[in-house]
Amino acid sequence: MSAFQPTATTFKRGSHTLPGEHFTSPAILAEEMERIFARGWNCVGRATRLARPGDYFLASIAGESVIVVRDAQGVRAHFNVCRHRGTRICMEETGHFKESIQCPYHAWTYGLDGRLIGAPHMQEAEGFDKREYPLHAAAVAEWEGFLFVSIAREPQPFDAQWAPMRGRLSRFGLPGLTVGHRVVYDVHANWKLVFENYSECLHCPTIHPKLATVLPYQSGANDLTEGPFLGGYMEIKAPNLSATMSGRACGAPISDTMSADDRHRAFYYTLMPNLLLSIHPDYVNYYLVHPVGTDRTRVESEWLFHPRTLEDPANNIRDGIEFWDLTNRQDWDIVAQSQLGISSRRYTPGPFSPRESIPAAWDREYLRWMGRG
Amino acid sequence: MSAFQPTATTFKRGSHTLPGEHFTSPAILAEEMERIFARGWNCVGRATRLARPGDYFLASIAGESVIVVRDAQGVRAHFNVCRHRGTRICMEETGHFKESIQCPYHAWTYGLDGRLIGAPHMQEAEGFDKREYPLHAAAVAEWEGFLFVSIAREPQPFDAQWAPMRGRLSRFGLPGLTVGHRVVYDVHANWKLVFENYSECLHCPTIHPKLATVLPYQSGANDLTEGPFLGGYMEIKAPNLSATMSGRACGAPISDTMSADDRHRAFYYTLMPNLLLSIHPDYVNYYLVHPVGTDRTRVESEWLFHPRTLEDPANNIRDGIEFWDLTNRQDWDIVAQSQLGISSRRYTPGPFSPRESIPAAWDREYLRWMGRG
Amino acid sequence: MSAFQPTATTFKRGSHTLPGEHFTSPAILAEEMERIFARGWNCVGRATRLARPGDYFLASIAGESVIVVRDAQGVRAHFNVCRHRGTRICMEETGHFKESIQCPYHAWTYGLDGRLIGAPHMQEAEGFDKREYPLHAAAVAEWEGFLFVSIAREPQPFDAQWAPMRGRLSRFGLPGLTVGHRVVYDVHANWKLVFENYSECLHCPTIHPKLATVLPYQSGANDLTEGPFLGGYMEIKAPNLSATMSGRACGAPISDTMSADDRHRAFYYTLMPNLLLSIHPDYVNYYLVHPVGTDRTRVESEWLFHPRTLEDPANNIRDGIEFWDLTNRQDWDIVAQSQLGISSRRYTPGPFSPRESIPAAWDREYLRWMGRG
Repeated sequence: MSAFQPTATTFKRGSHTLPGEHFTSPAILAEEMERIFARGWNCVGRATRLARPGDYFLASIAGESVIVVRDAQGVRAHFNVCRHRGTRICMEETGHFKESIQCPYHAWTYGLDGRLIGAPHMQEAEGFDKREYPLHAAAVAEWEGFLFVSIAREPQPFDAQWAPMRGRLSRFGLPGLTVGHRVVYDVHANWKLVFENYSECLHCPTIHPKLATVLPYQSGANDLTEGPFLGGYMEIKAPNLSATMSGRACGAPISDTMSADDRHRAFYYTLMPNLLLSIHPDYVNYYLVHPVGTDRTRVESEWLFHPRTLEDPANNIRDGIEFWDLTNRQDWDIVAQSQLGISSRRYTPGPFSPRESIPAAWDREYLRWMGRG
Repeated sequence: MSAFQPTATTFKRGSHTLPGEHFTSPAILAEEMERIFARGWNCVGRATRLARPGDYFLASIAGESVIVVRDAQGVRAHFNVCRHRGTRICMEETGHFKESIQCPYHAWTYGLDGRLIGAPHMQEAEGFDKREYPLHAAAVAEWEGFLFVSIAREPQPFDAQWAPMRGRLSRFGLPGLTVGHRVVYDVHANWKLVFENYSECLHCPTIHPKLATVLPYQSGANDLTEGPFLGGYMEIKAPNLSATMSGRACGAPISDTMSADDRHRAFYYTLMPNLLLSIHPDYVNYYLVHPVGTDRTRVESEWLFHPRTLEDPANNIRDGIEFWDLTNRQDWDIVAQSQLGISSRRYTPGPFSPRESIPAAWDREYLRWMGRG
Repeated sequence: MSAFQPTATTFKRGSHTLPGEHFTSPAILAEEMERIFARGWNCVGRATRLARPGDYFLASIAGESVIVVRDAQGVRAHFNVCRHRGTRICMEETGHFKESIQCPYHAWTYGLDGRLIGAPHMQEAEGFDKREYPLHAAAVAEWEGFLFVSIAREPQPFDAQWAPMRGRLSRFGLPGLTVGHRVVYDVHANWKLVFENYSECLHCPTIHPKLATVLPYQSGANDLTEGPFLGGYMEIKAPNLSATMSGRACGAPISDTMSADDRHRAFYYTLMPNLLLSIHPDYVNYYLVHPVGTDRTRVESEWLFHPRTLEDPANNIRDGIEFWDLTNRQDWDIVAQSQLGISSRRYTPGPFSPRESIPAAWDREYLRWMGRG
């Protein structure tokens, strides 16, 4: 979706696209699920979704349903699996628990913290001890107003892994933003094609003629060029003030602490394993990437605005929403074509140009996660 | 669907639900098909369906289409596969053969007994002998008005295997009952979850609030507590006279030879491999369980009544039909939730309570059939 | 669809249908794709489709999308896969290239002959040489107005393989015929059942009562009885003049050079791996057979006429179209039944009669292609 100017240090001569089986093999998809999504810190959305203790929503991570719930101490995550007969406990995507979480099948009941507090007739079973049957816990972290969950049995420390991002974007005031729009896309391509597509704008002149007039693909620079976090900025071409259909701002600035440069730039970052983050002067949009099959990906997308923007009906937030909704759909169409071509017997890895240094770096990082770096 | 009071001898301390792969592995499903359904005596419905010689219906057993047909000698079963080029001969689910069974492709023709009696132009093939090409036969048995078919090459003797059931339910006059209603359900869960769900009523207070007022889950007792046939009875709570929406009887008693106790009891039995049998004072309903996938099951259900009940329009058979149709749909919803939860990486077998002694016994029997008992 | 009178030399005593796994095993289907369709010369339709340089259409061979295009030198075929990032370049089934073929993703551009002539920013990549990245080529051949493509890396010489067919049908003037009708059928059966069904008319009396009055199944003779090309003719029974609903000719003779015998015969040939060719005095129809799954086949069918026939509105070409459209649909129904029956545990190869010598010969040839002959 975006493009980055290469820097001398990041382009590695001879970078090529991934071998075809990475886009077609169910065995590799299964391996990705375990090595990447079941081990990493997956973004599950905005912390503002859980305002009061008892509020919850369901997140899907590597095929697991996880209950993300706020209790008096903070946000917790539990596997959505009753310890009695394995039933999925919650069915509603979002809601509020009064005081406890009850399985509808045989009424086993858990505290918001996951402890088993009721299990009808189990007291008749010799040796049964409630303390041995809490809900299975998943780990939770928060960064810039986003919630992250790891379903790993021994999660990597979030703070260590996320260190490169600590404070890096704090001037944008992301925690204070509010969701103004949400779309879920069904993409007919492998999830990695979505990441690679997001990571360069060499395709913008042909695929996105509208966008190309606002965000010149040769502008800008990357500041994160190797590792799990990658990306940089593009210049918003004057007289455009933002990446909108009209070129005008679609609301108030997202923050009072942006620099003068920030006000005419758009920032695009990929954060492994599943977050794409786009920051514009007047709005933010982000994407959660969920592999569904070797050739199928679900992408959840939300647009965030300053609360003042949403309060004032004079603002036309559709102007920013439509700009990216149009661009996204153009991207889903072309990555579906890539998926089809890569499935050919004759596909072989092709050469990246220097304008594709970020997808090349992303592929290297992907291979490291897969134990092949 | 029903609940049973445990007896001291049947509850085994430490019984747990089955390992997760038994609900998700296609390899285990394939093994079940061979070890259980392709070897056992599958109920295929009511003998009354075949009134006259030539009447037939198609039964589906472990993926096989079988022609069940009455000839002058009795009921026979043939694999629905022409011996010439393998074509499925019959397509209509039910019907009547005049004198013979003809394959529509090249007109090979068989007697109702399966003998090949016509094969155009095969007399030109040297050494061809019609006697070598009868329809492949399957074994047929009858019990209490139900027909059973085994597609095994060497079927176990029905009489020996069914000995525990011989005469046990004869006081209910089941052979004389008539079908009053039929429903086919598409259940989004493994077939074993249907059996386990049928085998206890600990879930009734939460899942079936209506049923729980009529059939208290702590009432009754089990009389078959280990082996291929399991179950017992529950008390119908006064002033209710039957398991109906109104609590009233929905027809004449199914038999004149029931005991005084029988008249306020409901009986629930599971009969391996595929029959669930529910007997109420005024109607019977039964279920044929067909695995379709690891997470999909087709359940054929019929309600049976005394002929007098169906002859008299004053009887409201809907009263009994709706009671179980409602209950069944509640059950399909919750077992679908179990299927989803059991598929989790974190699912581990959970503990059965003493109130779940029958599903625990059923699981043991299942493991014996699978050669792991 | 058609029937052939056996000749003494071709019937081999004891010929039987293929083992069941050839119709149900995904592994065997994958092997067929590689050994038969990815190695053989697949018919892709009529050469008249590509009138001018730049005209193209997409062909599907063994799962590959191939661009078949005419340039100044003749007809060429390219894999539809960009050498940059593997994207499928063309999406429209048919069309016209002005001078070059451009990938819509990053604008890599190829000549009609496949040479890479433009690759934006690749000049910045050290050592990149356009000459190393042409479109992958597939081989093309033409016979009697039909185009054939081989996607093999080292295709067998067409002339040698097609030698038995050189000139054999030239009296019918096939190159000069024009397409008058097109249908694509979705058949619920293995592709080999389509070939076997086409190769005998023993089934015609039961499956095609209409056809059987026009084309007696015991008439005619086969002239190709072993090898990749099989078939012969049937007599059109007087007073019928053609295989049409009315029995009348539906247009002008397809050629002036037919013999007197040809004018009351219908010819039916199978040409491995994917062409079925039916020649009648006044029209031709042909079928391209595409395996889609073990139990699914796509069949593309076209009806060809002499240009004079299509120019004169007095001709009722529907008369010939409907005759075979009806017959085809009857065939798809019965082969779907064969597919179901052959999937039975009890299916075993059955005996071919002498009237089925051509399907028996086709099976032998198939096994040779599979390396099991």
